Amino acid sequence: MGVEERRQQLIGVALELFSQRSPDEVSIDEIASAAGISRPLVYHYFPGKLSLYQAALKRAAEDLAGRFEEPHEGPLGARLLRVMRRFFDFVDEHGPGFSALMRGGPAVSAGEPHSMSHVSATNALIDSVRQAAYDQMLSHLGVTEASPRLELVVRSWISLAESTALIWLDGRRIPRADLEVQLVHDFAALAAVSAAHDEGMAALLRTMAKEEPADGPFAELVGRLIALGA
Amino acid sequence: MGVEERRQQLIGVALELFSQRSPDEVSIDEIASAAGISRPLVYHYFPGKLSLYQAALKRAAEDLAGRFEEPHEGPLGARLLRVMRRFFDFVDEHGPGFSALMRGGPAVSAGEPHSMSHVSATNALIDSVRQAAYDQMLSHLGVTEASPRLELVVRSWISLAESTALIWLDGRRIPRADLEVQLVHDFAALAAVSAAHDEGMAALLRTMAKEEPADGPFAELVGRLIALGA
Repeated sequence: MGVEERRQQLIGVALELFSQRSPDEVSIDEIASAAGISRPLVYHYFPGKLSLYQAALKRAAEDLAGRFEEPHEGPLGARLLRVMRRFFDFVDEHGPGFSALMRGGPAVSAGEPHSMSHVSATNALIDSVRQAAYDQMLSHLGVTEASPRLELVVRSWISLAESTALIWLDGRRIPRADLEVQLVHDFAALAAVSAAHDEGMAALLRTMAKEEPADGPFAELVGRLIALGA
Repeated sequence: MGVEERRQQLIGVALELFSQRSPDEVSIDEIASAAGISRPLVYHYFPGKLSLYQAALKRAAEDLAGRFEEPHEGPLGARLLRVMRRFFDFVDEHGPGFSALMRGGPAVSAGEPHSMSHVSATNALIDSVRQAAYDQMLSHLGVTEASPRLELVVRSWISLAESTALIWLDGRRIPRADLEVQLVHDFAALAAVSAAHDEGMAALLRTMAKEEPADGPFAELVGRLIALGA
């Protein structure tokens, strides 16, 4: 195997291990053994567990950002629901690693130098994924310059999606399919609250609603809410 | 001054400085000067900036948790609005320090040992404040054992409140009074979405709604939403 090929293989093996258990529980020996190479050879490609973790994190971040991409076709509610399904696929695949990362950062660097710059690098990576999610949302809403209120709705809903996924992972006590639909409904609900406070958001919401079919998730929410009030 | 009195004074001075600028920009010299004592004397009370930062953080966390406490009197919407006002008071008072803390943890420990245990201690403190907010919400809802869906609504709304405050601090482009009301409305909206998916939540929402006056924030939201649809 060539150097780059071997590096990529190691990143893949490490990502799988870091995903399945809290990263601080995964040792270099284990990674070496799973990759079928010796421990010194791992160090030949990566100076330490920290740099291997960072490389695995970078690959996971690119993977997740890629899952936000959705063709600009069909009703918005259905697009968002497909993205939510892919987001929960990702969360499902990387559960323990995702939890460890998002709940206060990886403890993987304990005992290693540069741990605070590691924290900064990790946060920058998380922020880049959030930004990719934000950019995708705006592009699907057909907006290039977001108003402060639209930016608030989209960014705070992204943080709601993160916390919903983290709470789901803690015991999986609600079916994930319910939460995928619920997050689409949450977006509509937060946008409606914002629209109730702001004319620009109200205009955007009306445009969104016009394109929605009677059997889409947004119409379903309205139906459910009306039934609730009855 | 006695030892404990001096420690408390230093914590107060440090908290004020750590609140007004990103904590990694605040030096021990500055803290000493603001407290009117020498640098070596600061070190007599605290082994380093990190332990002083942790002590200041602990005081801020207790302060914030205290602001969630609200008498169990009157309609829920009005109680929640008063808590949101006190939450934004806190965020306003501690703006830059709050942002630095919540956006990826304090860089204050760069170069110091034990930085990862510092990260853990900080996260534990943040989690204790979130838990205090959660406990208060449940007690006002009159619930001792939360269902998974109620827990999800309350915890994810708390994270929404955090991200809303952070986005507000970044430029303050929306009046905070609007956001205080909006967060109360967001809670109602997220609870309504959850109720649209779950009978237990629907029952809780009906109980909540029954106690709300026609001039309260929940009724105001319903009125605004109806006007939006008209």
